[in-house]
Amino acid sequence: MPDTKPVLNIGLIGSGFMGKTHAFGFASAPRVFDLPYEIVPHTVADRSDAVASAAARAFGFAHATGDWRAMVADPEIDVVDITAPNALHREMALAAIAAGKHVYCEKPLAPRAADAVEMAEAAEAAGVRTQVGFNYLCNPMLAKAREMIRAGALGEIRSYRGVHAEDYMADADAPFTFRNDPAGGGALADIGSHALATAEYLLGPIARVLGDCATVITSRPDGAGGTKRVETDDVGRAFLRFENGAVGTIEANWIAMGRKMQHDFEVHGSKGALVFSQERFNELHYYSADDPAGQRGFRRIEAGPEHPPYGRFCVAPGHQLGFNDLKAIEIAGYLDAIAGRAPEPFNFRAGARVQSLVEAIQRSSRETAWVPTN
Amino acid sequence: MPDTKPVLNIGLIGSGFMGKTHAFGFASAPRVFDLPYEIVPHTVADRSDAVASAAARAFGFAHATGDWRAMVADPEIDVVDITAPNALHREMALAAIAAGKHVYCEKPLAPRAADAVEMAEAAEAAGVRTQVGFNYLCNPMLAKAREMIRAGALGEIRSYRGVHAEDYMADADAPFTFRNDPAGGGALADIGSHALATAEYLLGPIARVLGDCATVITSRPDGAGGTKRVETDDVGRAFLRFENGAVGTIEANWIAMGRKMQHDFEVHGSKGALVFSQERFNELHYYSADDPAGQRGFRRIEAGPEHPPYGRFCVAPGHQLGFNDLKAIEIAGYLDAIAGRAPEPFNFRAGARVQSLVEAIQRSSRETAWVPTN
Amino acid sequence: MPDTKPVLNIGLIGSGFMGKTHAFGFASAPRVFDLPYEIVPHTVADRSDAVASAAARAFGFAHATGDWRAMVADPEIDVVDITAPNALHREMALAAIAAGKHVYCEKPLAPRAADAVEMAEAAEAAGVRTQVGFNYLCNPMLAKAREMIRAGALGEIRSYRGVHAEDYMADADAPFTFRNDPAGGGALADIGSHALATAEYLLGPIARVLGDCATVITSRPDGAGGTKRVETDDVGRAFLRFENGAVGTIEANWIAMGRKMQHDFEVHGSKGALVFSQERFNELHYYSADDPAGQRGFRRIEAGPEHPPYGRFCVAPGHQLGFNDLKAIEIAGYLDAIAGRAPEPFNFRAGARVQSLVEAIQRSSRETAWVPTN
Amino acid sequence: MPDTKPVLNIGLIGSGFMGKTHAFGFASAPRVFDLPYEIVPHTVADRSDAVASAAARAFGFAHATGDWRAMVADPEIDVVDITAPNALHREMALAAIAAGKHVYCEKPLAPRAADAVEMAEAAEAAGVRTQVGFNYLCNPMLAKAREMIRAGALGEIRSYRGVHAEDYMADADAPFTFRNDPAGGGALADIGSHALATAEYLLGPIARVLGDCATVITSRPDGAGGTKRVETDDVGRAFLRFENGAVGTIEANWIAMGRKMQHDFEVHGSKGALVFSQERFNELHYYSADDPAGQRGFRRIEAGPEHPPYGRFCVAPGHQLGFNDLKAIEIAGYLDAIAGRAPEPFNFRAGARVQSLVEAIQRSSRETAWVPTN
Repeated sequence: MPDTKPVLNIGLIGSGFMGKTHAFGFASAPRVFDLPYEIVPHTVADRSDAVASAAARAFGFAHATGDWRAMVADPEIDVVDITAPNALHREMALAAIAAGKHVYCEKPLAPRAADAVEMAEAAEAAGVRTQVGFNYLCNPMLAKAREMIRAGALGEIRSYRGVHAEDYMADADAPFTFRNDPAGGGALADIGSHALATAEYLLGPIARVLGDCATVITSRPDGAGGTKRVETDDVGRAFLRFENGAVGTIEANWIAMGRKMQHDFEVHGSKGALVFSQERFNELHYYSADDPAGQRGFRRIEAGPEHPPYGRFCVAPGHQLGFNDLKAIEIAGYLDAIAGRAPEPFNFRAGARVQSLVEAIQRSSRETAWVPTN
Repeated sequence: MPDTKPVLNIGLIGSGFMGKTHAFGFASAPRVFDLPYEIVPHTVADRSDAVASAAARAFGFAHATGDWRAMVADPEIDVVDITAPNALHREMALAAIAAGKHVYCEKPLAPRAADAVEMAEAAEAAGVRTQVGFNYLCNPMLAKAREMIRAGALGEIRSYRGVHAEDYMADADAPFTFRNDPAGGGALADIGSHALATAEYLLGPIARVLGDCATVITSRPDGAGGTKRVETDDVGRAFLRFENGAVGTIEANWIAMGRKMQHDFEVHGSKGALVFSQERFNELHYYSADDPAGQRGFRRIEAGPEHPPYGRFCVAPGHQLGFNDLKAIEIAGYLDAIAGRAPEPFNFRAGARVQSLVEAIQRSSRETAWVPTN
Repeated sequence: MPDTKPVLNIGLIGSGFMGKTHAFGFASAPRVFDLPYEIVPHTVADRSDAVASAAARAFGFAHATGDWRAMVADPEIDVVDITAPNALHREMALAAIAAGKHVYCEKPLAPRAADAVEMAEAAEAAGVRTQVGFNYLCNPMLAKAREMIRAGALGEIRSYRGVHAEDYMADADAPFTFRNDPAGGGALADIGSHALATAEYLLGPIARVLGDCATVITSRPDGAGGTKRVETDDVGRAFLRFENGAVGTIEANWIAMGRKMQHDFEVHGSKGALVFSQERFNELHYYSADDPAGQRGFRRIEAGPEHPPYGRFCVAPGHQLGFNDLKAIEIAGYLDAIAGRAPEPFNFRAGARVQSLVEAIQRSSRETAWVPTN
Repeated sequence: MPDTKPVLNIGLIGSGFMGKTHAFGFASAPRVFDLPYEIVPHTVADRSDAVASAAARAFGFAHATGDWRAMVADPEIDVVDITAPNALHREMALAAIAAGKHVYCEKPLAPRAADAVEMAEAAEAAGVRTQVGFNYLCNPMLAKAREMIRAGALGEIRSYRGVHAEDYMADADAPFTFRNDPAGGGALADIGSHALATAEYLLGPIARVLGDCATVITSRPDGAGGTKRVETDDVGRAFLRFENGAVGTIEANWIAMGRKMQHDFEVHGSKGALVFSQERFNELHYYSADDPAGQRGFRRIEAGPEHPPYGRFCVAPGHQLGFNDLKAIEIAGYLDAIAGRAPEPFNFRAGARVQSLVEAIQRSSRETAWVPTN
């Protein structure tokens, strides 16, 4: 029963948590979507042949290598998928682009915005298709929110409040890690980037920011019996002005004890409002000022087939998508872009934009000044 | 990079919504779990070669056939997976069992309990492994609930309230379908079966029932311009006595306007309580009477790696599983049973049990009498 | 600044929790409503002069007496308000009616329905105005719910689910009390009465019931070092048929660990649904099938001035009423009835009706038979 | 049955919404609390004799006057209660203080912080007891939150997020009012003051602020057919540093469409967290990192007798307090202070503090600079 679709050979770099998530997405996306390609899980690259081989077996890939450069050079590979540590993204992506590969890269695109811009420009010059893994944006309820905002259901947009708070760094005894590295580290860069991406996804460009990045846990164990001073932010926030005139705030907080996935927003317009929480991400809450008096209230809309591509996963409402389903949606969108059927959902240029917003907020915080973002 | 695991060839009968869901599960389960077999999507059977071929392409199966009997007879097939209409389950399963296949069957196992018992007995006699698709039970939060109940966290269990309500039959103008067929139809059989399965999963055997099955929409369009009298229940309920002494209620309602997936329960013990809603199935709410005075309350526990096998899908809490992930868990459990690593999670005997509970309630309703369930 | 309204002298029997609540209501109602009378807190009667005097001081009443009969005979008293133990309601109310007083009585009107009917008939014969304290019905959100149901916002009403669950009897070591007395005791009588009153308030008369009353904690300390067998129900439930054709269930449960005030209902119609919880009683959740596809969901309506008489308490929405405010509404409604401005909100006849429903369910449970309620 | 308590004669200035609320509180507080005084509703003053007389009748006060100065001079008056327009607070309060009266004043104490400080100093010099009506702070659940924070239940406090959002100014066609007056107007002053009061109530002093006050609806009808430019903020926010080292944010927003009473906070510590919403103000949500793994989650604590003075209103949990009950608690606390039984709950000095925080944020916003608050 051979599939007559063209083949797309995937080369995956990295086999940690995100590597596994990507492998899952490559396996599940074809079961859910009518993709333009037959996805072939071709090669896994990791820091050694042994690690890569084990991952290839676990993930269902045909080949493995301890040398990512070899894989990038392999003419059979069509897409290079980078889930390696952030500090390596730039080098790997630039090599893959130079080899003419499409490149799919986990967020953040690079620790420094300038590097991210360089990567975006290289990809544009080479004409390859790129994608950054901002999977929360692949939620059908966010698509619905954006569609409603654009269609004017909320009237003129006036104010926005976004947050991304978790508690994975709340333990002061947890050692200093790459997340605390001044180059690209901090809560704002790590998860505030999600809050910023969502804000612009919904409301369009942010024009300027006034930031406040604070270090609350000022030192952490250095893993060698001593302590190390922390300079990155645990809580990073910004006041925003959007180009459409709306005012906003975002907060990133990775010491928010008790919060596991508080990627939430609230947007108020002249005719309505939307409230969303990633803690219950199959729901969108909508208030319409046009409802009859005495019967107005936030409506809890549950995800269903009216919210594409939910219907691809399930024909009935209320069954709910999971985190890994969002990754399948992300991959399907990317393949459509590679096939020229749709624009890139969130390409390197978009990834670089988020990095530049993060840096604008960090600079604003240092200088206590409003900083334009363009 | 050949996988050295033994191969398990899957033969899938039916390619509708549930067929697609199963195909998704077979593709995703190996990406998530360390399964004892290499799953091979071997053959799809459906009512014609053309339909089967299209499904095989879409689902990634190698072969297709319009003759399910041929597939069942194929010596290469290890597992026959039945997602065909309910009325065909018995014949197909018995044929597969006779051919020595393991059989995986969507719920309900059969329209009549006696048939389900026959199927269970046949499987037991043949020594094949069976599974019925009660996927809501595959939720890690339900496993947590059962574990807490068994460990005594709630003390002595006293009362239980279960419901499964949706609104997919709320439109009185929707035509009469197989769901309204007196043989196996009705809300109680269709979704009350889930409420019953969950109740016994958590509290153990129900000893007796007092039922009330009511037809509210008494006629529906017959699809030929006329109307047809409906005799099956739109709302089916029962009072319960569990063998452990607890009292309970379950309700099945498929005309519950506004409800999309209200598979909820509440269980009260002498020391605590649990509250759950499938509408937010990555949460479990726990009340402990042992918490300090003034600080007691229902605790909203969010799914995370502490709730196996959540960690197989995601290393961090709060990311959430989706409906299709539950299917992958279901398949992984079944494969462990086939490999002899664990008991069958929900075999034909368990499926027959649910059917017999449904019929006990239906009979109780007709006779207005308490009916024992054993 | 004399108020020119006619005076209404109140005689209060009983000074426990409910007596205090009534005193609060008499003091607060005139501050909130434009009542037809000047309420004068005239006399408190209790089991001794000393107890009554202390209560009169605390509650702001002018006089006190240890002899309730003397107070009932006092020609100055206009309204006799009974908050004494349930077993005394009948005698006190009949005496007050015989003396030509208006009578306000806490629920339950009497332990036995026959007594309640006698009281209702006596009041009707005497032409006095009566009221039973079903305060949950005084919630503006319940008035809104009833108004919406009557106006057809939900279409044809099809199914109903009501519950009143608390945990005040969950401690098995708490001694046997009057609540466990076979005459008038049990969860169904004590709190199921609320669930039944709400059900008929919203949907109109119940036609027949099939009950299940279960004793879960079968013995309790007798307060004298021994134990006493409990025969009253801890969990009392019923399947319902309403005269309008809807099917329903109610549950009363006073051992529902963790629940403090789960007086909840859910009502489904052909065009919409309402969901309510007393745990958040300033909210009403409304689903309209007429909302646009993709934007349907339960709307959380918050209490506000559009929901009379909320505006009497507060000019702005969202500030919320409390339990004691419901008592002020109850009193205002009663005074309007005494003044002939409106029908009695919930008179002795209505109170007797609830008692007869309770007894019908209890009998149905004993006989395992559907019992008509008229 | 004369009450032997000393009399406290109340003189109320103003008979609008807040005047009525205060009158309600004076009537209900004695029914709930064992107050140190007999409260006598003595005189209402308003802008004319006629208005005052009508209010006195409605509110149950004995006397009325169109001349507030006369009332302030009346030797019988013990407490002057000011609910007149904000712009008059200073003059009235200073006159009352000069006459030796205790003064109770609605918030804001004065449009300008300097005036508020003058009022506080005058009261302190005169030795009279003062109170500002920050009623949200009178919620037993906030007292519980503060108690838990102080007792270390949350460990070291690290971050705070507060908001007060409503939509009463969301209609751009609503005319310019006193709320838009540059002297004392704006969302930050009107409702941000509540967010600031709550923040310091819970965490102690704020050390410095970085503010952003934004006008979104830049002109409003002037009531005379034209429009008037608006300079006050619709959305006012600040980044905070508390003296205890925690970082925080507050937001005031009076154009938050759909929100009626979003006075919410979230506070994170090293060992736990608290989440609260005024939308459900009888609940407090508590997360303890010390709960067992797999069973951690936010606990929904419902108000009950363990949360004084809830038990004064109701002996059973779950019945809920309303907005007006908070006012009774406020009054009871004030009377205890007048009697010397307890410190003033929120005196003029505290009211002036809130005003100074508002002005610090406004100045910070104008100057884009961190501003110390002491």
